[in-house]
Amino acid sequence: MASDKIILTGDRPTGRLHIGHYVGSLRRRVQIQDEGDYKRMYVFIADAQALTDNVDNPEKVRQNLIEVALDYLSVGLDPEKTVIYVQSQIPELCELTFYFMNMVTVSRLQRNPTVKTEIQMRGFSGESIPVGFFTYPISQAADITAFDATHVPVGEDQKPMLEQTCEIVRRFNNIYGEGTLTEPKIVLPDNAACLRLPGTDGKAKMSKSLGNCIYLSDTAQELKKKVMSMYTDPLHIHVEDPGHIEGNTVFTYLDAFSRPDHFAEYWPEYQNLDELKEHYQRGGLGDMKVKKFLNKILEETLAPVRERRKEYEQDIPAVYEMLRKGSETAREAAAATLDRVRHAMKIDYFDDAQLIAEQAKAFSQK
Amino acid sequence: MASDKIILTGDRPTGRLHIGHYVGSLRRRVQIQDEGDYKRMYVFIADAQALTDNVDNPEKVRQNLIEVALDYLSVGLDPEKTVIYVQSQIPELCELTFYFMNMVTVSRLQRNPTVKTEIQMRGFSGESIPVGFFTYPISQAADITAFDATHVPVGEDQKPMLEQTCEIVRRFNNIYGEGTLTEPKIVLPDNAACLRLPGTDGKAKMSKSLGNCIYLSDTAQELKKKVMSMYTDPLHIHVEDPGHIEGNTVFTYLDAFSRPDHFAEYWPEYQNLDELKEHYQRGGLGDMKVKKFLNKILEETLAPVRERRKEYEQDIPAVYEMLRKGSETAREAAAATLDRVRHAMKIDYFDDAQLIAEQAKAFSQK
Repeated sequence: MASDKIILTGDRPTGRLHIGHYVGSLRRRVQIQDEGDYKRMYVFIADAQALTDNVDNPEKVRQNLIEVALDYLSVGLDPEKTVIYVQSQIPELCELTFYFMNMVTVSRLQRNPTVKTEIQMRGFSGESIPVGFFTYPISQAADITAFDATHVPVGEDQKPMLEQTCEIVRRFNNIYGEGTLTEPKIVLPDNAACLRLPGTDGKAKMSKSLGNCIYLSDTAQELKKKVMSMYTDPLHIHVEDPGHIEGNTVFTYLDAFSRPDHFAEYWPEYQNLDELKEHYQRGGLGDMKVKKFLNKILEETLAPVRERRKEYEQDIPAVYEMLRKGSETAREAAAATLDRVRHAMKIDYFDDAQLIAEQAKAFSQK
Repeated sequence: MASDKIILTGDRPTGRLHIGHYVGSLRRRVQIQDEGDYKRMYVFIADAQALTDNVDNPEKVRQNLIEVALDYLSVGLDPEKTVIYVQSQIPELCELTFYFMNMVTVSRLQRNPTVKTEIQMRGFSGESIPVGFFTYPISQAADITAFDATHVPVGEDQKPMLEQTCEIVRRFNNIYGEGTLTEPKIVLPDNAACLRLPGTDGKAKMSKSLGNCIYLSDTAQELKKKVMSMYTDPLHIHVEDPGHIEGNTVFTYLDAFSRPDHFAEYWPEYQNLDELKEHYQRGGLGDMKVKKFLNKILEETLAPVRERRKEYEQDIPAVYEMLRKGSETAREAAAATLDRVRHAMKIDYFDDAQLIAEQAKAFSQK
């Protein structure tokens, strides 16, 4: 029996994607895609959402659309299996957002912890939050429900957003008819190391402006340079010193990327990561050796991604054509949902033979 | 030379229209329509806006759509001259609203005096304002600019709303290109008496819930009953007492409706309203006589409206068909604006040959 899961995720096109995205979501998406346990899988480029806090710099969003598309294709997202589309090309999302805005109060938005955090992160003061940014949990609910998504694989930090979506769905269905919209489930990563990869400098978050990201599109030279200059344990000064692995970025990355077969292949002195960690903690193991090992693993992971990217980069018009087709397919699905929504809301007046007949009767009997 | 004015106004379908609407806007709209000094004139039924604070009662909005349409046609709005359309049938408005939301801050909305007043009037507490209601100045900006409206004839109370629209237009054009959107002008009523007609009970505002409205669709009997029980001067007890005309609803209505020819026709004892007022203030003129005169004037004004309404009520499907056609025409205009907007925002990626060519070149030279 075919699965009836509808899976949906997306990314903001404000820069090239990095290995934080890879570990946190892309790797898993490709795995889900290839396992095939779904009715449909959607992955979208959230350009309209990116504009909510980049209104003065639309060119950044415009230029990064292709970067994200190339990253998607390079990691193995396959337009034959996954509908890859561009958010702004689905105007039905705006219409659904518009109706959802009636179902959420201003104070409910103010209480959303994700909104609070994101406002802080982006440095908005209370005075300067754009309305579009403030209301993005509502538009996110539209992004999800327009496609009847049942499963949304995102990070723990997105939990309040999904809760907001479910609240809207319940309120909408309660007013306009049960079953009109679908309540989605959050699918959290199963591996703690995948929750969030720190920057190469040890800071909690990879960020373009901090220059601490390893991009999927980095060359072998760029990758090596970044790995070799990574933040480790500042107390591990001499090789013989005992080393700490907590907060040691090299080991956090190894947690996320290394497999036992990597040891067999590149460093047979150790059976697995636990043995390596033990030696490092005991003392007598230099950072450089560990970094070289990490670099080999990352290179093994990223070399094929880089190769595929190179190929796709040679035919940019074809990538846009892929996005166009995906957006068309997505738009059909969203349009069908909106037809259903307008019918449930009974604002499809001109197709509402019952309304017209009832009123005609009432007026003629007046 | 043809005028290039584009005129736009609308009403919320939350009840039948009353003579406050007639005096405040409808009468003037018909006059403007018939003078013909415009490129296009739009009048719309704001059902989507009405839903922002009637989310729990969509049926009210749905049932009143036809009432407002009948009122429009009855007062003389002519679908051959004026594009009459239904707001919710133009999804482009939601898309434009969505982009405008990035151009306004939350605190700017909070400072909007019309929003403040309306929030009070509708009894929302700080906790319970629906986001759609809070943001309606933004959607109103979309309502206006989607049609390139140059002239918006509304009451003084709508001034802050128009200012918000102009701010959005300036910000949008500044970021995305001068001339993309059109800044509208507010057209205020030229007659103070037309600003706002009080209720028949003397209360400042006509309101369905107060039962103090004279509807355009009232029968001659209903009209007469309401006029005869109108609030006048509580100190004018005996005919011989001097009467006050300030705050005397009957005289406020006469200010709005009576013309010198009404005196010639119905009450030749007086040349004009000034003479009548003088007599009333001096004493010796009973309320009943003045009310009967007002009733004759209102009857003269409303009888043809009522007659026309009766006719239109006999063919409700034709009224819906008129709305459907008007909505189609309006949608074409809004769609053209949105094409222009998307092009200016450069989010028409798939049609953007320059973008695709530039990026293809950049990647091939990497």
